[in-house]
Amino acid sequence: MNELLKQNIKRHINLSEDELKMFNTYFKTKVIHKKNYLLKAGEVCKYEAFVIKGCFRVFSIDKNGNENVLYFAISDWWLSDIDSFTNQIPSQLFIQALEDSEILLINKSNKVKAYQEIPKIERLFRIMTQKFLVSNQRRILQNHSLTSEERYQYFLANYPQIAQKITNIQLASYLGITHEFVSKIRRKIAQKK
Amino acid sequence: MNELLKQNIKRHINLSEDELKMFNTYFKTKVIHKKNYLLKAGEVCKYEAFVIKGCFRVFSIDKNGNENVLYFAISDWWLSDIDSFTNQIPSQLFIQALEDSEILLINKSNKVKAYQEIPKIERLFRIMTQKFLVSNQRRILQNHSLTSEERYQYFLANYPQIAQKITNIQLASYLGITHEFVSKIRRKIAQKK
Repeated sequence: MNELLKQNIKRHINLSEDELKMFNTYFKTKVIHKKNYLLKAGEVCKYEAFVIKGCFRVFSIDKNGNENVLYFAISDWWLSDIDSFTNQIPSQLFIQALEDSEILLINKSNKVKAYQEIPKIERLFRIMTQKFLVSNQRRILQNHSLTSEERYQYFLANYPQIAQKITNIQLASYLGITHEFVSKIRRKIAQKK
Repeated sequence: MNELLKQNIKRHINLSEDELKMFNTYFKTKVIHKKNYLLKAGEVCKYEAFVIKGCFRVFSIDKNGNENVLYFAISDWWLSDIDSFTNQIPSQLFIQALEDSEILLINKSNKVKAYQEIPKIERLFRIMTQKFLVSNQRRILQNHSLTSEERYQYFLANYPQIAQKITNIQLASYLGITHEFVSKIRRKIAQKK
């Protein structure tokens, strides 16, 4: 089993070597080159992915053609459209590699099998989903309570590895502000130093 | 065990009568009168609640004193600040009863016990958390893609039972618009009929 996935699992549950070996058989490896897509709006999300290396952005495109970034994912993160994957309905999201990336994929029927054959996997994904929900809730609350500049600072402080992989435009689209405003904040911060 | 909770559980997992009986011992009943709070910002969220009857709103107050409603909960819904409850950190949220309400409460140590003694409970909360995450994601996407009027219509169509329990001001605070705008939408819709 990939060492990064093994360590990711170990942080939450204890699996025996046999269980790890079995869980591993449910995944396949995929390389996605820069600018290519794991998922496009209109498709049903067939996989949940674990990122081994690289960087992805998950975004929607609104009626006016504006891109809105839901989140970014780098190595050691789980990645999917949970709505489309869980409910097997067409996705509203695009998942695009921002650099050459490598992922492990598990499909829906293998995930169901994993739950049945290794019940501890329920715990793993209960905890993962909880963490995801917490970060979503924090983001909604921050959009209400913090200024654009404060949200920018929070992002840099909490996701420094992502910040160095993405452009001003991509970050602006995540923060829900214009990229001119991101440049302005950056200049302002540079002047303070 | 309360019949509503029993049916709620049954939709997702099968518990034996003994398991239901055991799970039931982890809960206590509480009545919360209209306008009273289950949680206030600054407190650590000690309980997850299952609503038997009544209606709650979960909201934050920003620096300018504006209330932002995160969600509403009525009978058959689960209710908590998942961030504060999971991580045992002070909450940023208020949970207030909008009418005389009755809930079942489970505290953190009993929830941990439930996971240990009835492993199928992991599955129950994995599914619950997933559903919550899906509805959160839909809300974020709607804020990007739908107009205020479309979001208002979506709320009425999907949560008719909640819509009849809340005021224009509370709904406006959930939709992120002014209550004058909600009144305007309501007038416009009335004229169309």
